[in-house]
Amino acid sequence: MLAGLDPYQHLYAHRTGSFRSSAMRDLMAITSRPEVISLAGGLPDTKAFPPELLQELVSDVTVNDGPRALQYGPTEGLDELRHAIADLMAEDGTLVGAAELIVTTGGQQALDLLCRVLVDPGDAVLAEGPTYPGAVPVFAACGADVHHVAVDAEGIRLDLLADAVERLARDGRSAKFLYVIPTFQNPAGTTMSATRRRELVRFAQEHDLLVIEDEPYARLRFEGEALPSLRSLDDTGRVLYVGTVSKVFAPGVRVGWVHAPHQILHRVNLAKQGSDLCTSTFTQLLALRFLRHDRRDEVLVRMQRLYRARRDAMVAAIEASLPDAAFTVPRGGLFLWATLADGLDTTDLLAAALERDVAFVPGVAAYADGRQGASSMRLNFSACDEERIAEGIGRIGVVVRERASLARALGRRRKR
Amino acid sequence: MLAGLDPYQHLYAHRTGSFRSSAMRDLMAITSRPEVISLAGGLPDTKAFPPELLQELVSDVTVNDGPRALQYGPTEGLDELRHAIADLMAEDGTLVGAAELIVTTGGQQALDLLCRVLVDPGDAVLAEGPTYPGAVPVFAACGADVHHVAVDAEGIRLDLLADAVERLARDGRSAKFLYVIPTFQNPAGTTMSATRRRELVRFAQEHDLLVIEDEPYARLRFEGEALPSLRSLDDTGRVLYVGTVSKVFAPGVRVGWVHAPHQILHRVNLAKQGSDLCTSTFTQLLALRFLRHDRRDEVLVRMQRLYRARRDAMVAAIEASLPDAAFTVPRGGLFLWATLADGLDTTDLLAAALERDVAFVPGVAAYADGRQGASSMRLNFSACDEERIAEGIGRIGVVVRERASLARALGRRRKR
Repeated sequence: MLAGLDPYQHLYAHRTGSFRSSAMRDLMAITSRPEVISLAGGLPDTKAFPPELLQELVSDVTVNDGPRALQYGPTEGLDELRHAIADLMAEDGTLVGAAELIVTTGGQQALDLLCRVLVDPGDAVLAEGPTYPGAVPVFAACGADVHHVAVDAEGIRLDLLADAVERLARDGRSAKFLYVIPTFQNPAGTTMSATRRRELVRFAQEHDLLVIEDEPYARLRFEGEALPSLRSLDDTGRVLYVGTVSKVFAPGVRVGWVHAPHQILHRVNLAKQGSDLCTSTFTQLLALRFLRHDRRDEVLVRMQRLYRARRDAMVAAIEASLPDAAFTVPRGGLFLWATLADGLDTTDLLAAALERDVAFVPGVAAYADGRQGASSMRLNFSACDEERIAEGIGRIGVVVRERASLARALGRRRKR
Repeated sequence: MLAGLDPYQHLYAHRTGSFRSSAMRDLMAITSRPEVISLAGGLPDTKAFPPELLQELVSDVTVNDGPRALQYGPTEGLDELRHAIADLMAEDGTLVGAAELIVTTGGQQALDLLCRVLVDPGDAVLAEGPTYPGAVPVFAACGADVHHVAVDAEGIRLDLLADAVERLARDGRSAKFLYVIPTFQNPAGTTMSATRRRELVRFAQEHDLLVIEDEPYARLRFEGEALPSLRSLDDTGRVLYVGTVSKVFAPGVRVGWVHAPHQILHRVNLAKQGSDLCTSTFTQLLALRFLRHDRRDEVLVRMQRLYRARRDAMVAAIEASLPDAAFTVPRGGLFLWATLADGLDTTDLLAAALERDVAFVPGVAAYADGRQGASSMRLNFSACDEERIAEGIGRIGVVVRERASLARALGRRRKR
């Protein structure tokens, strides 16, 4: 073929123009070099998983269930796993039937399938600002018109949500859904308060707004009381729920799930069938064994302690090395969100940071327009030990000071 | 919400109207009952996989690579696995670089991602008639306008392909791609001859037609010489290749791949990132261990012998119980395609067959319009042993004779 830089240009679907190469993805490739201290990813520390337990789980699957593990399974997932997931949700006070769940290839696929089922190009979608950076390309791929609603210390701001809903209504539009991560939000690190949860559910009911509640981190709580899920507060079919075993077991098994009213779930099932037929039976059986294992909570407690110590190390390092930054102190999860003083641009900063072998996610990756969040960064504290966290934040501090003094030397007038 | 039959009706994306509940899917649910002899699925016989080999592979992964197996991996797949896949393709004479491949969650995801990257609603797509029943809902989900091109004993008919391309050109249109399964085609059981392969590649080059070559079964050859892949015959970037370990190792690991020119592959990578971030690292490492294991070919030969004996049993059973049916005798793979005499409708027949606890895929599932193929059925010979195959075909024979005599009694005039 074919003249021009890309001979296949004429063949691409229009909507792939909106596929976005997130800063995230390119970053992951760069940060796979071992000398880089990556505070960019969202990687659990899988080295901390007890190796003898892994071997026990895996032997159990292969010895007792080998042929089934190797075979195709039903599109909606293995029945036993769906029951185990329903039981897990019930422990947290969220009561749904196993038949109201579909197992997905990670929580990511759950979000992707929901978008495929619900969103036409141009449809409005509401999301927290900032939102999960991995959701941004999914929204882009389905052509969603994303409206961010800022969060405060108690979660998504309902006054701004009401404004956004009203603005859409004035244009004769309504949002297909609101996407939220109530607990230990990625990337903001904030947790929606119990009061805000009740108010949000009431708002959704009053405004006939569908809510997708994404809860990957809720069980990684270091302190404080567990809070009710939005789903547990709604009995009107307006809250859909996305979960995953990635953070309580392992992301490498790619097992997540979606709960939705059966009408929506039926369409998700059809979409999943076309997408990958079914999630790996082998890893579904592994996840099932883990969820039913009597050491499950022991492993969870181990992870909570490990990540809490690392969060504390990160907080201390930021106070020492980035004294002018504003940041959240999350009570669980994997991330905190730091905003630099003096209007420094974290995308610019990242290039300099990578030269010093340290990485973070620039704030713009958490916004659909790629412009907001320019002075913020997402910092992960689960993947590195305390020493590397201190070293990594220290290096970021050096880069920040260099930039800030450069900015001053150039006589820029950016002030806090 | 909530009047009417489906209170979420107003929220669905328009294109999900075209999600199609394939006969396939519902059938798989019915046929999971153990008393049903299912000739409907496409299940390899995973009970025949050597259990001690499975345990060896799995131990190797968990003991030597546990933390990595549990972790996220790169979106494009593990480097070692991509190299192992490139080596596998090279054994068959198809030379591509590891960097020209992306690992997918089964071959199904490869096809889905290619459609997401290439097809806008209304775009024309060419496919064999009949085509893979699992491709039909994927085409429907992306809104493709599917034009089937009939196959003969040597594969897709190039005269009809030329007609289809010309008809589109007269309307100022061109097909985004042609989707073909050259070897042991699902469902037709036919294999494209070496001559036809060369002619097809030449046709694609002359008409600037992109070809997606799907080759899940080529290594399950029972007799005859291996044939060159279409990809190996093209050096102009017009042939994309989809592969899977589902039929040479196990479908339960959900590991497939796509080879495409780097411009297209880049977009596939972005689409995959949004879809599921990455394929299970655990099962990628399992597949890698298997592809590199020195017992790999022994297992393949075992499968070939097993399925060949079952194909022979099915052919004998059809000759005995369905003497008026026309059918293919495939030289490999998992399926044969039988067409009944007297214009009997296999969708009608299926209901009666299920009452007798035997299942097949009705021919209409292999066509996008759900109308062609009405007298045909896809019969799988890999999942059941010879005895059950004979019993199953015998039961279908009984149902066919009942229907045929009923039709005669009603004085219908359908003749062969």
